[in-house]
Amino acid sequence: MARPIPYPNSVMKRCSVTKLWGGRFAGGVDPLAWQYNASISFDFRLAKVDIQGSKAWAKGLRKAGVIRADELDLILDGLEKISYEIEASEFYIQPADEDVHTAIERRLTELVGAAGGKLHTGRSRNDQVATDLALWMIEALEVIEKNIKEVQLSLIKRSEKDFGIIINGYTHLQQSQPILLSHWWLSHFWPLMRDRQRLAELKKRASVLPLGSGAMAGTPYPIDRKFLAAELGLDSISPNSIDAVANRDTVAEFLFTASLLAVHLSKLSEALILFSTAEFGFIHLSDAYTTGSSLMPQKKNPDTLELTRGKTGTIIGRLTGLLAALKGLPSSYDKDLQEDKMPLFETYDSLCLMLPVMAGLLESLEVDAGRIHSALNPAILATDLADYLVAKGIPFREAHSLVGQVIRKSEGLHVPLHQLPLKDFLAVNPAFTADVFDVFDFEKSISKRNLPGGTAPAAVQEQIALAKHLAGL
Amino acid sequence: MARPIPYPNSVMKRCSVTKLWGGRFAGGVDPLAWQYNASISFDFRLAKVDIQGSKAWAKGLRKAGVIRADELDLILDGLEKISYEIEASEFYIQPADEDVHTAIERRLTELVGAAGGKLHTGRSRNDQVATDLALWMIEALEVIEKNIKEVQLSLIKRSEKDFGIIINGYTHLQQSQPILLSHWWLSHFWPLMRDRQRLAELKKRASVLPLGSGAMAGTPYPIDRKFLAAELGLDSISPNSIDAVANRDTVAEFLFTASLLAVHLSKLSEALILFSTAEFGFIHLSDAYTTGSSLMPQKKNPDTLELTRGKTGTIIGRLTGLLAALKGLPSSYDKDLQEDKMPLFETYDSLCLMLPVMAGLLESLEVDAGRIHSALNPAILATDLADYLVAKGIPFREAHSLVGQVIRKSEGLHVPLHQLPLKDFLAVNPAFTADVFDVFDFEKSISKRNLPGGTAPAAVQEQIALAKHLAGL
Amino acid sequence: MARPIPYPNSVMKRCSVTKLWGGRFAGGVDPLAWQYNASISFDFRLAKVDIQGSKAWAKGLRKAGVIRADELDLILDGLEKISYEIEASEFYIQPADEDVHTAIERRLTELVGAAGGKLHTGRSRNDQVATDLALWMIEALEVIEKNIKEVQLSLIKRSEKDFGIIINGYTHLQQSQPILLSHWWLSHFWPLMRDRQRLAELKKRASVLPLGSGAMAGTPYPIDRKFLAAELGLDSISPNSIDAVANRDTVAEFLFTASLLAVHLSKLSEALILFSTAEFGFIHLSDAYTTGSSLMPQKKNPDTLELTRGKTGTIIGRLTGLLAALKGLPSSYDKDLQEDKMPLFETYDSLCLMLPVMAGLLESLEVDAGRIHSALNPAILATDLADYLVAKGIPFREAHSLVGQVIRKSEGLHVPLHQLPLKDFLAVNPAFTADVFDVFDFEKSISKRNLPGGTAPAAVQEQIALAKHLAGL
Amino acid sequence: MARPIPYPNSVMKRCSVTKLWGGRFAGGVDPLAWQYNASISFDFRLAKVDIQGSKAWAKGLRKAGVIRADELDLILDGLEKISYEIEASEFYIQPADEDVHTAIERRLTELVGAAGGKLHTGRSRNDQVATDLALWMIEALEVIEKNIKEVQLSLIKRSEKDFGIIINGYTHLQQSQPILLSHWWLSHFWPLMRDRQRLAELKKRASVLPLGSGAMAGTPYPIDRKFLAAELGLDSISPNSIDAVANRDTVAEFLFTASLLAVHLSKLSEALILFSTAEFGFIHLSDAYTTGSSLMPQKKNPDTLELTRGKTGTIIGRLTGLLAALKGLPSSYDKDLQEDKMPLFETYDSLCLMLPVMAGLLESLEVDAGRIHSALNPAILATDLADYLVAKGIPFREAHSLVGQVIRKSEGLHVPLHQLPLKDFLAVNPAFTADVFDVFDFEKSISKRNLPGGTAPAAVQEQIALAKHLAGL
Repeated sequence: MARPIPYPNSVMKRCSVTKLWGGRFAGGVDPLAWQYNASISFDFRLAKVDIQGSKAWAKGLRKAGVIRADELDLILDGLEKISYEIEASEFYIQPADEDVHTAIERRLTELVGAAGGKLHTGRSRNDQVATDLALWMIEALEVIEKNIKEVQLSLIKRSEKDFGIIINGYTHLQQSQPILLSHWWLSHFWPLMRDRQRLAELKKRASVLPLGSGAMAGTPYPIDRKFLAAELGLDSISPNSIDAVANRDTVAEFLFTASLLAVHLSKLSEALILFSTAEFGFIHLSDAYTTGSSLMPQKKNPDTLELTRGKTGTIIGRLTGLLAALKGLPSSYDKDLQEDKMPLFETYDSLCLMLPVMAGLLESLEVDAGRIHSALNPAILATDLADYLVAKGIPFREAHSLVGQVIRKSEGLHVPLHQLPLKDFLAVNPAFTADVFDVFDFEKSISKRNLPGGTAPAAVQEQIALAKHLAGL
Repeated sequence: MARPIPYPNSVMKRCSVTKLWGGRFAGGVDPLAWQYNASISFDFRLAKVDIQGSKAWAKGLRKAGVIRADELDLILDGLEKISYEIEASEFYIQPADEDVHTAIERRLTELVGAAGGKLHTGRSRNDQVATDLALWMIEALEVIEKNIKEVQLSLIKRSEKDFGIIINGYTHLQQSQPILLSHWWLSHFWPLMRDRQRLAELKKRASVLPLGSGAMAGTPYPIDRKFLAAELGLDSISPNSIDAVANRDTVAEFLFTASLLAVHLSKLSEALILFSTAEFGFIHLSDAYTTGSSLMPQKKNPDTLELTRGKTGTIIGRLTGLLAALKGLPSSYDKDLQEDKMPLFETYDSLCLMLPVMAGLLESLEVDAGRIHSALNPAILATDLADYLVAKGIPFREAHSLVGQVIRKSEGLHVPLHQLPLKDFLAVNPAFTADVFDVFDFEKSISKRNLPGGTAPAAVQEQIALAKHLAGL
Repeated sequence: MARPIPYPNSVMKRCSVTKLWGGRFAGGVDPLAWQYNASISFDFRLAKVDIQGSKAWAKGLRKAGVIRADELDLILDGLEKISYEIEASEFYIQPADEDVHTAIERRLTELVGAAGGKLHTGRSRNDQVATDLALWMIEALEVIEKNIKEVQLSLIKRSEKDFGIIINGYTHLQQSQPILLSHWWLSHFWPLMRDRQRLAELKKRASVLPLGSGAMAGTPYPIDRKFLAAELGLDSISPNSIDAVANRDTVAEFLFTASLLAVHLSKLSEALILFSTAEFGFIHLSDAYTTGSSLMPQKKNPDTLELTRGKTGTIIGRLTGLLAALKGLPSSYDKDLQEDKMPLFETYDSLCLMLPVMAGLLESLEVDAGRIHSALNPAILATDLADYLVAKGIPFREAHSLVGQVIRKSEGLHVPLHQLPLKDFLAVNPAFTADVFDVFDFEKSISKRNLPGGTAPAAVQEQIALAKHLAGL
Repeated sequence: MARPIPYPNSVMKRCSVTKLWGGRFAGGVDPLAWQYNASISFDFRLAKVDIQGSKAWAKGLRKAGVIRADELDLILDGLEKISYEIEASEFYIQPADEDVHTAIERRLTELVGAAGGKLHTGRSRNDQVATDLALWMIEALEVIEKNIKEVQLSLIKRSEKDFGIIINGYTHLQQSQPILLSHWWLSHFWPLMRDRQRLAELKKRASVLPLGSGAMAGTPYPIDRKFLAAELGLDSISPNSIDAVANRDTVAEFLFTASLLAVHLSKLSEALILFSTAEFGFIHLSDAYTTGSSLMPQKKNPDTLELTRGKTGTIIGRLTGLLAALKGLPSSYDKDLQEDKMPLFETYDSLCLMLPVMAGLLESLEVDAGRIHSALNPAILATDLADYLVAKGIPFREAHSLVGQVIRKSEGLHVPLHQLPLKDFLAVNPAFTADVFDVFDFEKSISKRNLPGGTAPAAVQEQIALAKHLAGL
């Protein structure tokens, strides 16, 4: 359970990196250069899909008559064994293993001999890693999609549970108009729907097989690429071998889609941080999603929400970094492309915490309906007051101006708008009559906004139904 | 023809901004604060779509019984007149015109009186500007799509015109394998196909009507939003009024899609800059797309390509900037959202030069087939040499190593690989026989890669046909 | 006063750009390529410093014996005349003027004949534009520095005016400990001090003369570069001609320093936006820095603060964009470098509004001391309660835990911490005695933090004195 | 030597993260939320400086009379013991250790009992982590500075070793003028000098003590902060406790300085990648810094240079990400600030490979003087030809144009410029005489550029001397 974390003495030494695989290096490669090149410390997580891809390739070689049936069996058995070793944490990285691909090929040859040396026939690491990325991404997208759906479900649950509560709506963070709290929760649902749509479209674009493109010119063996695609569950095959090995569009698109998803979560986070301040007091976060202070015993901090907001910045930076790395690359495959994996994996890992933590936080928070109600300010019915005048035939632009005068009067007299005597209304315009006070009714205000997308209870009910339907909940 | 550019004396003055509309400011607004807020200098380009949106809204108000038929006529006529004034550059911005919306409403009231003051009934600038953005973007996307298609067409033309030329393929910018130049041109076609796909998907997402969302709570008038959408040619209506006014997803998605498109153009630019150096010498750019030096009379600089590469950085920055601005925004509409327009418009303007300039450059450049041919190096057939051994039953991994030994020998003896005596081949491995020299045939090498996406002439012909079909060319 | 803004019909046309100088193009340059290259629309603001640089260069040529005394006089007179024309908006850009440098040289030759054609001897646009940038930046930095100083002054004024007001301090946006409001204002002063320090260091680095570097190899004439530097008021001369024309470090550093400055202003903005919500209610912004709503008559929106927050994102994007453009540039001067000017000028223009608007907003806002006082919550004295136990010999970690228990008790009983009966304190730990209630004194709490940088009144007074001294106020 | 890398089964599971410390969680914190918050997996590298800071704090508490001398001894001994445990990898992280600070305090209390619980008196994690960051950064900056110096030394060595070799200078990647190769090497030295200057200035700004600022209000104990600063070797103390805990300027500045440093290395990398292509052929990289291909036996790829170029993008992204995270943070300390460490540490680690790998690559590469010489093109003397006419009294602008005509003639006749018959020169202008052919002398051309910063041998010698002096080499 407890475990030591190796201490990186980086700062005190000439160079921060420890020589991970020290000792022997083939061909006089400079040890630091070796370390600089080696990607196994982060690309090993591709092992599962790399094996999957190699199995398909082996079958493709067999089908093309490049290897014999017994060689195929040996290779498939060897790869299967390596899978088990990895699952059981019994796979040992060797000093000369530069990346996940070489590590697995090396182990395969140890296990099955010469047949292992035939696996790479007609294949390059360029098309191999591109294939691994496609397979990995498709699985990753499914995981993320599922996690977004859970956050959507939490928002739906909240909008059902909190139905009927009227809350100040804000623009510019100033109180503006009354809305249903359910309507507000749902306003965070729809951006996630768009995120899912973008992810689904990305998945289609990721489902293209690069294998068979070789280093960049295509493979000289009569490989049936459509067979490979089918074996790997991919929709189609890449139409140009040069593009196939250079293409990192899906990674950029993943990072963008993740950035926008994170932006959506960060906006919700910011709002919930505000709502859980002492000053707003609209919600109480569960202890399960807050932390204390090392110094101040009374503190209950919304750390998880702040982290989501902060990590959004980090994810935006990863997108930027990749695009900057891709820009102006001169040839089909350049080693710069290796910089795609860390931002991809790290962003995926972040989302895999961000999303379920948000879902849990949403479901466990408590809404303080009393505070929300007492914060309602009749001044936010000013628009309704203008509409009252419009109904009496005054053009809106003029009505807006007249209500402005009434408000200045109410502020000058320090009397709340709804308690201003009728005479003060009349002094501004004779169109005001005794029924003006009927305007000051929050429920009435929201009920009037009864069109699709509006905040009226009936419209919000329909919205919930639509949301459930579209989200598959 | 000649015209003076006003000189911004910014540096010498307290503050760089001239007081554009100096003089009178309503309500004691600080002049600098006014300038800071005012967006008319850049949002005026929304005028056309703003008028379009206002016409639809006026019809919606009429349909909802909010205005009379004669008022509708007045408003529609007034808006039409404003359209003409703008087209004729006879529309005069007034000092108090904060943005395009207020300018047009102000002018409308000047033209049609009280009826003009009714246009804004039940509408807010929040849903109005979101609608304008949707309408503008849809038109912009169509223009960009058309321009991409032209670049694709230029690439197709090149691949047809240059068919048959074999060129060094590069990975890591090192000569790697022979490919058809046509295959290389096409490798820049497919990324643009994906860009078009992304733009088409974005267009669907942009085709959603926000109008009727009011400031954020929805409008209290019985507006038929589906009618509005139909009037404006939009596919659907926004499902949540709060989200509708806050949503800038499409702008972010536009900037991302533009970034990736620019990345694709910058990669092509980088390659063409290299190919047009004296050292590569594969292509000659037309004078129409190069410039000279103010000092060095012999220079012919590939400025347009360099600008495309540089502007790609700028566009990536705009995407970053918008995402950073959106992150953590606390409420439905915040003024920060005003920062969406400049990056959107500037990026659009950049693309509208980048794309046709690239198309023209591609069509007008000359390929130097002689230089390309003489640069072909037999060493790039080393993979074919390994495959030769594979065909003799040697596992690829071993064959790769044996060929490496042959190459070291050839380098040591300073004899080109294809001129190395057979005995030297034999010294490495007895599997080499006299037919080894048949390997050194560039045409044969490419012809073997005859699978979908490969560089064999037949495969490339099929690729061209597919490309034309998918691109609608 | 009123003026028409030309309407960019961009969307409806093939390409968004109007042909600014249409008609004739030397050497068959494609019109769009010309427009793509031309920088005069944005680099004309360098005119003043370009003339300054040209005057110095002319003197240098004379000193080196390259031109005659009468030629020098002609050139200087001609340049002076051009200065006047520009100031008077009587300088006319011609269709063939690609940039500010060619426009001025063209006009000079019109004015003084053959002598004008000698000005560019031994000079290239590469070292010329680098020199212009240095001169422009130095002036720009002085303007910004002065504007920051004004914001600092506003913060000092506030900290003096609001001295004595105790306010909730926040961490994680949760109430944490009492502080002096003056201390809080000053917490926004010091980041600006660091910004000024960074700008001053940048100014030294910008004060280096590139002139004399030619296109990249240096000039072949015996120019006295130290004389040029002295003429232009620059500190030193660049040590390497290749680096001199390629170096855009100062632009990147400007954008970074501006980004951090903007981040500081955006944090202050965010806090003031919160403090001016109805829920916090700690400050009231002046009408001069707020705007209304087109729909909701009661709204008073903190637009200027929101814009500062949003523009910070945009400025970060400009920094990103330039760094991405610079990355991996292959040679000394590449045209990509032209992308440095727009972000530089636009950022400068933004700061020139951001800063004075912030200064004015700070000075004109009203602090609501009553709301601030009534918002003080005794629970923020929990740390003092722990310190009370520490004073009685209980280790802090244990004291922290005991106070936590007391707080849970107070929350359970719904009794404010300072009104909890002594017996409940005693039930947690016998170290509590009757004097525990002395802890609940906000003034005492802040007075105890009387060390440099602390919030005690005496410490804050010293801090104000130090701030004034260091800021030169 | 060999070691298993745990396989992250992320994709197949609900969420990618393994439960690092699974099992018991105090206070019902959600396990995923715990993981989300916990920073020990990356902040443990602060352990050494955290202990250093804690020792100083303990001494400060003793000096202030808060703890007894024997307690101080216990604490110092305990912290010393923890240092040893960490160095020996015998420090065990426990499930409840949230971060490095709590882990060390927990262990201290295990080792020394109650005295350990007194260490955190008057201190908060907020000022503690800010202090750790300052101490860590100062050490990191020294390491980086030393590594940059080594790259500078390598460049000096190259410029001395390759002295005398004349090479094509490039602008727009087109051959422009002859320069000394030494001059070119040095053009990459000076940007590093500026980087060092920026790092030195940052170091001063990092050398400020936050300790004593508590959570944000300052500590209530009479701590001598100047004593603490002296103990920790820091130059000064922070002037405002709120700013002290919120300030992440130095991290942003570190990332910017690192970005610009990386940009400089990426430009050098790009140039070396080009120079090592078959087409340029100017340099041969050592095997120690290149890698082969898994498919193509002849390949020798400049991976280390490509990685430096790619990682520059990543570093730019980290800067962007942090700035986006900092923007608009509302209060003194927000948890978002935790996002500062990963980009800081990762960037440091990258630089610690980038720099020594570049130094080694530079020293080990071979310059191919023959290829460089044979690539020299007389056309790059066109500027000298114009200067020849200038010397005969023709204004430069006219001379430039005349030389342009000569070049067109030479291109039309397919005769190299220097072999064009005199009559053809004369046909353009009678000022040409037989001595025109003296212009075509590369050595003469560079020797004329003999002013500070120029490419003449004497000027370059002086430049080398200056470079050594300023770099302290």
